[in-house]
Amino acid sequence: MTEIPEDHPRHDSLVTRHRIEDGVDDGITSRQGLIAQGRGEAYDYLLGEETIPSADAAERAAAAQLLTADHPVVSVNGNVAALVPDALVALAAATGADLAVNLFNRTEERVERIADHLREHGASGVLGTKADARIPGLDHERATVDSDGIYDADVVLVPLEDGDRAAALAEMGKTELVIDLNPLSRSAQAASVPIIDNVVRAVPNITAHARDLSEAENAAREECIQEFDREAALRAAEERIRGGMSGGA
Amino acid sequence: MTEIPEDHPRHDSLVTRHRIEDGVDDGITSRQGLIAQGRGEAYDYLLGEETIPSADAAERAAAAQLLTADHPVVSVNGNVAALVPDALVALAAATGADLAVNLFNRTEERVERIADHLREHGASGVLGTKADARIPGLDHERATVDSDGIYDADVVLVPLEDGDRAAALAEMGKTELVIDLNPLSRSAQAASVPIIDNVVRAVPNITAHARDLSEAENAAREECIQEFDREAALRAAEERIRGGMSGGA
Repeated sequence: MTEIPEDHPRHDSLVTRHRIEDGVDDGITSRQGLIAQGRGEAYDYLLGEETIPSADAAERAAAAQLLTADHPVVSVNGNVAALVPDALVALAAATGADLAVNLFNRTEERVERIADHLREHGASGVLGTKADARIPGLDHERATVDSDGIYDADVVLVPLEDGDRAAALAEMGKTELVIDLNPLSRSAQAASVPIIDNVVRAVPNITAHARDLSEAENAAREECIQEFDREAALRAAEERIRGGMSGGA
Repeated sequence: MTEIPEDHPRHDSLVTRHRIEDGVDDGITSRQGLIAQGRGEAYDYLLGEETIPSADAAERAAAAQLLTADHPVVSVNGNVAALVPDALVALAAATGADLAVNLFNRTEERVERIADHLREHGASGVLGTKADARIPGLDHERATVDSDGIYDADVVLVPLEDGDRAAALAEMGKTELVIDLNPLSRSAQAASVPIIDNVVRAVPNITAHARDLSEAENAAREECIQEFDREAALRAAEERIRGGMSGGA
């Protein structure tokens, strides 16, 4: 990785970018993933590169959903694996969720590399390699999942998901928690809990909320889920992005 | 290239994306270029994926600047070469500008590939391979240009330029015409003529204006330059992007 001075004004953004580029070297991140990273950078820049209050509320609601689920699953693609492998493992541990590799541009080799990468970072048991079930309503290569992974999940956290797939998962009746920096994206719009934040900030924050909520009463988790207002959260993110433009940079 | 149905709602955006991916296969586009493409996609989406009136005015002013310059140069990087090679050759012909390859992540091999690519698309004489001059104020690898190319230019069109380099070129006293989809970027802010538009639309439109203006009186070109208001253009683009968020998608 290229060294970036700690005091560089774009330090965090550049470190993130280099992690994604390293992901390409490791066979984890695809070209489409690099382009998606760029789109995320633009929205995050407009958002002010911080977790806004409505996103924090969404992350707490997501933690509560994962904790109260029968079978919570965290979907992992190449970008997320490259960016926050340790944080994914910590999130799975804190919530009892399974990690399932789930790729838009699926190749067996890339699935295996990502699963290996997660195991190197401490994951025990990574799903997504069996590919024995399909999400209805999608063409073959986009639809492939594990029967005991995403297919079986009642609550699924999908960071950085394609719009068609996010919609298809919602159609299956799953409670879908989506991390996406564009509040207007079809993925964000399809989510039960849209989390308009950078995965680099969102995943550790969901974990922190899960640790906190796991010690609380059941009623506290239910309240957290009931009180989350998805429309308000989407609106707040839109307004922040609009305001971010006028604020300058 | 993957085939994309003509009636796909994201047709143009996807064709552009695939051209950039092909650019990687051809050794023209870098990984950083893919990420930059993603950033551009996000801003273009918010802008409405069209040339707004203030951008059209900027493109006309840019055409007038190129036509009245002593030595106009069009800077070409990997993304622009992959996206609009024919349009670059047409622009050079219409304005008498030189094409000069100018890379942020410079390797001799990539410079040669891009020069070859432009020649395959009809360019006669591509600068940027001699690397015998430096832009002051930048570290070695970022600074390298040709003495008879960008170094010597009085007017330079830089599509998709890095902020440090855009600022350094402006410092040299050059009239800088920048194509960039983010009106808040340092490149756009450093430009004499900031063109807030997609290069895919901007480059052919500058050419069209150049053809039109080359037949006009000298006074018409001067008027076009004098009347262009860079602050108003930057503001109009910001407002459009902000409005794009509220308009939904």
